[in-house]
Amino acid sequence: MLMVDIIRKKRDGGTLTKQEIDFFINGYVKGQIPDYQVSALMMAIFYQGMNDEETGDLTLAMLNSGEKLDLSSIAGFKVDKHSTGGVGDKTSLVLTPMVAACGVPVAKMSGRGLGHTGGTIDKLESFPGFSTAITNEQFINNVNTVGISIMGQTKDLAPADKLLYALRDVTATVDNMSLIASSIMSKKLAAGADGIVLDVKSGSGAFMKNDEDAFELAKKMVAIGKHSGVRTMAVISDMDQPLGRAVGNAIEVREAIDTLRGKGPDDLKELCLTLGSYMVSFAKDTSPQEAREMLTDALESGRALDKFADFIAAQGGKHEDVYDTDNLPKASKSVEFTAPVDGYVSSIMSEDIGTASLLLGGGRRSKEDVIDLSVGIYLNKKVGEECRKGECIATLYGNDDAKISEGYERLKKAYGFSDTPVSPSKLIKGIVD
Amino acid sequence: MLMVDIIRKKRDGGTLTKQEIDFFINGYVKGQIPDYQVSALMMAIFYQGMNDEETGDLTLAMLNSGEKLDLSSIAGFKVDKHSTGGVGDKTSLVLTPMVAACGVPVAKMSGRGLGHTGGTIDKLESFPGFSTAITNEQFINNVNTVGISIMGQTKDLAPADKLLYALRDVTATVDNMSLIASSIMSKKLAAGADGIVLDVKSGSGAFMKNDEDAFELAKKMVAIGKHSGVRTMAVISDMDQPLGRAVGNAIEVREAIDTLRGKGPDDLKELCLTLGSYMVSFAKDTSPQEAREMLTDALESGRALDKFADFIAAQGGKHEDVYDTDNLPKASKSVEFTAPVDGYVSSIMSEDIGTASLLLGGGRRSKEDVIDLSVGIYLNKKVGEECRKGECIATLYGNDDAKISEGYERLKKAYGFSDTPVSPSKLIKGIVD
Repeated sequence: MLMVDIIRKKRDGGTLTKQEIDFFINGYVKGQIPDYQVSALMMAIFYQGMNDEETGDLTLAMLNSGEKLDLSSIAGFKVDKHSTGGVGDKTSLVLTPMVAACGVPVAKMSGRGLGHTGGTIDKLESFPGFSTAITNEQFINNVNTVGISIMGQTKDLAPADKLLYALRDVTATVDNMSLIASSIMSKKLAAGADGIVLDVKSGSGAFMKNDEDAFELAKKMVAIGKHSGVRTMAVISDMDQPLGRAVGNAIEVREAIDTLRGKGPDDLKELCLTLGSYMVSFAKDTSPQEAREMLTDALESGRALDKFADFIAAQGGKHEDVYDTDNLPKASKSVEFTAPVDGYVSSIMSEDIGTASLLLGGGRRSKEDVIDLSVGIYLNKKVGEECRKGECIATLYGNDDAKISEGYERLKKAYGFSDTPVSPSKLIKGIVD
Repeated sequence: MLMVDIIRKKRDGGTLTKQEIDFFINGYVKGQIPDYQVSALMMAIFYQGMNDEETGDLTLAMLNSGEKLDLSSIAGFKVDKHSTGGVGDKTSLVLTPMVAACGVPVAKMSGRGLGHTGGTIDKLESFPGFSTAITNEQFINNVNTVGISIMGQTKDLAPADKLLYALRDVTATVDNMSLIASSIMSKKLAAGADGIVLDVKSGSGAFMKNDEDAFELAKKMVAIGKHSGVRTMAVISDMDQPLGRAVGNAIEVREAIDTLRGKGPDDLKELCLTLGSYMVSFAKDTSPQEAREMLTDALESGRALDKFADFIAAQGGKHEDVYDTDNLPKASKSVEFTAPVDGYVSSIMSEDIGTASLLLGGGRRSKEDVIDLSVGIYLNKKVGEECRKGECIATLYGNDDAKISEGYERLKKAYGFSDTPVSPSKLIKGIVD
């Protein structure tokens, strides 16, 4: 088998066999197939696409290029959740204790933020002492004892995907649905869950800028899950404006805790109940409606909040910091952005809000950057809400005047206003299963 | 400027600027831009193409990546000729002394054979002692004294093209008209001539398998020549069957000498007169008709043959070997392929004939192979000619029974027969200028 023949076949619109896909992934990981042939193939795939079977085979080849996490020593049906990334998306912080409080074991790998999107691990590190750098044994042990654990992705998971993604990033071959779907799913499948609920974001702050693309990606990922024998479904949710009102790290943790207390923003609560109802229904084999009632009870009874505190304590944080968030990092300065007109907020470009938070110091331009967990933005007004000229629309929290000023300029660009009432986009756009 | 942005621009159908093309070619030659980005760009170009201006800019960037031969110390208008490669194509051997005998200086770089096509330098090395490994000074001196010199391509000519071609070869990105045209023309332009006459072959044994592609390539190359300020035109000629009757190395030299004596095959003579008439008309500023008369006189008077003998002698061969070809390599064995039926030869697949010669030992599979100059094939019958069952159709000359047997099997596949009379394809399919 020659790599150049595989490239030519795909170039001319052919369908690659499982043998051909395995050949190129294995050869690439072993260093036998050079980058320049793989990048040419990626560009051919960009134009010619891959069908569901090819996409599934590519995912499995990448999954099999490394270790798969063995969760068999955790009793029960393990459900994982993955978000394609958004702004103000603290869903995992609220959702995982809710689900765990329903008796469903949560063994989750999470990532760090990059660019305008935040990451669950960064946010959790707002708790002094908390760490996700734990061994597989600690991880599994915590799930078995506390019911929930979150760790960083290990190097050994889907190494082919890491190689391939780095290559695609510098060869303009990222933007292909099959390649995006197989990249995400190879890592998710390697994390070893029995079921996966995907939160595919759609809108200005998301990787998928419109619903059509979001549904297409969701379908590809669900097809891959099924190809691999793992129960998978996807919720397509709005990212035209940030989720909730807090954007940053510690500030998002506070909002997550408020939500676990029943005092959080409606959109965040609703998304957590929706995603959670599918996760619990997978694990408990109940209807999503029954699952939703269980989750609501876990929230209202305070059991979800307690579960969160147990989880934080089990990974090095302090139990009491969940109940009194004064110990979390706080910025030293704040600046208000006020309404320039009377009217209604008509749009909040999520990407600009995410970038404003990055500019404040709360995000990373490159993987090596150190972030300031204390900074962030609070959106006092969201899309559809009325405002009077001079009224506070959003508050920036920062520690450095120059950075605050940069963040402020970006934040200003994010907001649009209208004279007439505006309806925000629907939060839940659909389901793919 | 970032290479990834250039790739993305072309990927999305954009037009690259001269600055972008210079950036990537210069960066690639300097080792600052890696193979994997260049191969991704090549694949994007495969799909999106390049317009004439981009193609011209790419050619100039590759030309400027190395040295350009300085022919200014040769008096007069220097004309070069380039063939896109065929089977039995000994045109350069006949044409260059014809043109030189008309007083037009011929300073030509030629290549070696690869795969099923032969190379002028290999053929010339059939003359014992002859060498094309001469210095630029000897080359120019020979043109000034003898009127003609042929040398191998130097390493320093268009090094970007060498790098790029090697990369395209292993990434399935050879088959794009703009890339093919710029590759050929960057080397031709680096050879320093004032005018270029291109012989674009069309048919089964050629790089361009049909007339449409051949005309497209011709137009691209002529456009590049004009973009570079060099007078350029192209003749599209038939390669559905081999040119002339001899295929190999020494055997082709004998046929070339026969042609210079006025006893060669009509198609070869006609192609040489056609190409030569444009070369001479460029140099002498006469009409092609007048040029053709000059060339016919050079042939008939024997001046072209004498010029060839002077050229061979000036580069280490023996003058007398041109007049008595017994000293050229001869194979020890011959096998006849006879007509299986009464009828007419309906087709001779050039590529199979070229491959049969390769199998006999007369060609190279890879650049490192050593070839046997003595072997080859003589086509006693060509397309349209009548044959009787058992009559000799073609003769194979070889030195090794196993190789002869392999060559024979391939030769058999090449011939097609018909019960009814057949007309061969037109030799000269058109002109692009």
